[in-house]
Amino acid sequence: MTSHYTLTITCPDRAGIIAAVTGFIAQYDGFIVEASYHTDVAAQRFFMRQEIRADSLPFEADEFSRRFAPLAVDFAMSWQLTDSARNKRLVILVSKQDHCLDDLLHRWRTKELNVDIPCVISNHEDLRSFVEWHGIPFIHIDMTIDKTAAFEQIAALFDEYQGDTMVLARFMQIVPPFLCQRFSGRIINIHHSFLPSFIGAKPYHQAHLRGVKLIGATCHYVTDELDAGPIIEQDTMRIDHGDTVDDLVRYGRDIEKTVLSRGLRYHVEDRVLVCGNKTIVFK
Amino acid sequence: MTSHYTLTITCPDRAGIIAAVTGFIAQYDGFIVEASYHTDVAAQRFFMRQEIRADSLPFEADEFSRRFAPLAVDFAMSWQLTDSARNKRLVILVSKQDHCLDDLLHRWRTKELNVDIPCVISNHEDLRSFVEWHGIPFIHIDMTIDKTAAFEQIAALFDEYQGDTMVLARFMQIVPPFLCQRFSGRIINIHHSFLPSFIGAKPYHQAHLRGVKLIGATCHYVTDELDAGPIIEQDTMRIDHGDTVDDLVRYGRDIEKTVLSRGLRYHVEDRVLVCGNKTIVFK
Amino acid sequence: MTSHYTLTITCPDRAGIIAAVTGFIAQYDGFIVEASYHTDVAAQRFFMRQEIRADSLPFEADEFSRRFAPLAVDFAMSWQLTDSARNKRLVILVSKQDHCLDDLLHRWRTKELNVDIPCVISNHEDLRSFVEWHGIPFIHIDMTIDKTAAFEQIAALFDEYQGDTMVLARFMQIVPPFLCQRFSGRIINIHHSFLPSFIGAKPYHQAHLRGVKLIGATCHYVTDELDAGPIIEQDTMRIDHGDTVDDLVRYGRDIEKTVLSRGLRYHVEDRVLVCGNKTIVFK
Amino acid sequence: MTSHYTLTITCPDRAGIIAAVTGFIAQYDGFIVEASYHTDVAAQRFFMRQEIRADSLPFEADEFSRRFAPLAVDFAMSWQLTDSARNKRLVILVSKQDHCLDDLLHRWRTKELNVDIPCVISNHEDLRSFVEWHGIPFIHIDMTIDKTAAFEQIAALFDEYQGDTMVLARFMQIVPPFLCQRFSGRIINIHHSFLPSFIGAKPYHQAHLRGVKLIGATCHYVTDELDAGPIIEQDTMRIDHGDTVDDLVRYGRDIEKTVLSRGLRYHVEDRVLVCGNKTIVFK
Repeated sequence: MTSHYTLTITCPDRAGIIAAVTGFIAQYDGFIVEASYHTDVAAQRFFMRQEIRADSLPFEADEFSRRFAPLAVDFAMSWQLTDSARNKRLVILVSKQDHCLDDLLHRWRTKELNVDIPCVISNHEDLRSFVEWHGIPFIHIDMTIDKTAAFEQIAALFDEYQGDTMVLARFMQIVPPFLCQRFSGRIINIHHSFLPSFIGAKPYHQAHLRGVKLIGATCHYVTDELDAGPIIEQDTMRIDHGDTVDDLVRYGRDIEKTVLSRGLRYHVEDRVLVCGNKTIVFK
Repeated sequence: MTSHYTLTITCPDRAGIIAAVTGFIAQYDGFIVEASYHTDVAAQRFFMRQEIRADSLPFEADEFSRRFAPLAVDFAMSWQLTDSARNKRLVILVSKQDHCLDDLLHRWRTKELNVDIPCVISNHEDLRSFVEWHGIPFIHIDMTIDKTAAFEQIAALFDEYQGDTMVLARFMQIVPPFLCQRFSGRIINIHHSFLPSFIGAKPYHQAHLRGVKLIGATCHYVTDELDAGPIIEQDTMRIDHGDTVDDLVRYGRDIEKTVLSRGLRYHVEDRVLVCGNKTIVFK
Repeated sequence: MTSHYTLTITCPDRAGIIAAVTGFIAQYDGFIVEASYHTDVAAQRFFMRQEIRADSLPFEADEFSRRFAPLAVDFAMSWQLTDSARNKRLVILVSKQDHCLDDLLHRWRTKELNVDIPCVISNHEDLRSFVEWHGIPFIHIDMTIDKTAAFEQIAALFDEYQGDTMVLARFMQIVPPFLCQRFSGRIINIHHSFLPSFIGAKPYHQAHLRGVKLIGATCHYVTDELDAGPIIEQDTMRIDHGDTVDDLVRYGRDIEKTVLSRGLRYHVEDRVLVCGNKTIVFK
Repeated sequence: MTSHYTLTITCPDRAGIIAAVTGFIAQYDGFIVEASYHTDVAAQRFFMRQEIRADSLPFEADEFSRRFAPLAVDFAMSWQLTDSARNKRLVILVSKQDHCLDDLLHRWRTKELNVDIPCVISNHEDLRSFVEWHGIPFIHIDMTIDKTAAFEQIAALFDEYQGDTMVLARFMQIVPPFLCQRFSGRIINIHHSFLPSFIGAKPYHQAHLRGVKLIGATCHYVTDELDAGPIIEQDTMRIDHGDTVDDLVRYGRDIEKTVLSRGLRYHVEDRVLVCGNKTIVFK
């Protein structure tokens, strides 16, 4: 597979943005593989994503960026250019449940998901053997004594292992505000309900108590406010009166891992742009 | 189609209930067409539904009930026997939007839904011609002057037209507690969100603001507490960042009418049993 | 709602197409509301669709076309420009079942679907009163004596009523090749199965016999080969062993009307481009 | 969790079957946890499944069977009684792709699926390390030289390891008739299409070529006729024109593993009864 550059842009909406950007690319014979656009009418902002074949351009990413910069200034763009040849580095946090971890490691080892996983961090020892079988370092952190210190250690590990994205794969611990702010837009959580229903603890119990006819899961960026960050992906499945809480937990695992892996893929491929508390997902 | 009797029962859970009831039916050569059972473990209650071919029994519904009564007492059963030969009578309440009404009237006139619709009540005149084309009385009630009086008039009309079930087909008015209590378990509403998310007014606006990736609709029994009654049926559909509030409203209409008609069918066929604030739906 | 022009293009794939087209639009300060692109790698062809706000341009559609023509020649484009201010004209063909017709007429009379319906044609008289209540001419054509003559009459009516698209809303008659060819890409059918499963007659019986666990419906362009034309939209729903053929038929009606109305909307909004026997649907 | 007995029965339909069976159970104070019934009208056969709490009965499974036998004869029943305390033994066959295997082993090691996996058989060496990490024997069989001999070896291994069910978890080899017949109703396959569409090789390529808008997967019992055995479970998911064959393959893996694990669970819990070429699945 040829590598490509992904150019994502957001700027105030006006006429001529697409022409300017695609004109710039065409000027160097850049071959656009995939192009997506969106206008948020309320925010009056424009969003775009271009995938350009790296080998169609006469220069490297750095030079592209240097030449593109003046145009970006003209349109007051926030933008970034990423190179698909460089894998994003995911630091995965887990507790005891491993269905999301198992799912992610399978996609990683079969190269379905093109990422690096420099380490897995957990507040329990249970999953060490499985992680280490993959040749990935497993780091245990005790969270029972000093939670703040533990999260500071996590932040330090994330830096040390040069993480791009922190994945809470059913981590079951509330991330403190200082971490949310420090890694804003870089922490992804899977919540086991169809948000905004059933925020917080034991959502399947809440769902069972309310007597809903579908359950769901939500992949979202983590912010200060619990389970209220920008939603990347969601899904639901049908249940009925015969299903116990244990059944919901079991069905739920299948939705959780699917929703997390889809959301994570969008993020990793730079398909997710954030606008206020909402996401644009260019599938 | 042969008519059948539907026997629905709820009682404290214990061994031998199915044997006692099916033994009673077998004793008279009753032919069971469909049989469903459920135990609510938390409530320690048992629920069952039997469809029996009317012509397999040597007596009519009244006699069945008379003979069944002692057994029901032994097991402390709440129960009812309905005859499919007698259509339930739905009084439909609407405002200006007619997608649910159109859907229900189509199912009624093609006999997909075996019910009688003695009248349609509305706080607007808009849908008179369409309803009257069906030969169904259309009654306009002004709700702008005295809401309580208007709802008392609705209750009186419901009685006058011998309604069994009141259907709020996007009625857009909050039913007062006295009516909810008087017709408990007999008022069905379609709410245009996936409850418990987005209770109250303008749920599609709320959904758009929150940035959810699926929208839904909920068919439920109406109780004192707004949008919090027992849920009969729900469904969701996928949306994305490109969809405006108007798009959500448009997609939503398709979910609303499907969910309402499914929930209503379950109710009309005596498939719904209520247990606290939850429903058992024997599909 | 402001009107817009929709520009749809297909041409051999190469670098610079987007830049050329959006550059052309930007040169006249055209404001692009929605932009979609696709490359069919096997066919080496590029497809695009642009919605441009009509009032952002300094000239009308005709002048746009005149000026755009040379560029289209340079890139060997097949293209068309449509004006949202001009409704497409749908001629609807039905037999006796009216669930799709009812659905379409409801969307038409509530202006959810911005089309004109100059007439409804049927080989039965059953639906006359319902259609005429809408103020739409209802034309009965006898198909029992001479089918070819009947289809020639349908073609003549389609021309007389200046139809753009012929909609087979459960018409239950096989359209002869001469008509398929004459109105290629302009006849839309709803087939009551998830194609390519269960082609031809009685698909719900076929589905029941095979014991599938989901049923479906397919909206497609009609071609010479029965139920084998380009697919525009499909959907499925879950069934189980307890469902009879009659149940499948009943559930199926809900899928059929949803799938037909969605597919038709895509077509009417010029979102569907055909590539061989496949469609690109720019949602 | 208390263990339970599962009694599954099929017999010619007539009045009084439920009463006779539940009366028998009640006579010994047997506590029914779950009860399901179905009549196949065309086949005139009745199907039922009862879960009975083992500790509510005054005797063991053997004695239950001995006492039940005369009643079974009276009604010409085919029946079986299984004990949830005894795990079914699954022999899993794989080739190189491991998404279904990974999924099944995860459910096994977390005890979500209560089965024993005495061995995994493969025609490739690729998955040895992963399987052996679980402490499960991995047996490689060369299928390139003599396919018939290889399948005889598989049959011998199945017997040696006392398998109950053979699971083709993307095995990619056509099972010969002698094996299908010998283990009728005991071989489960996952086919990567929504059957009966796209039978045989490369179904995702077929789907892409046909331009369908949904893809699917099917879990079914293996019979002599390729991909034509009784269907246990199916599901579909939405795709669009932008998806390549590789995308379909990738999405498809998620459906395949979910559908296989659901179908397998139904089978393992004795929820699947076969009627001709169809299944009754008592969920």
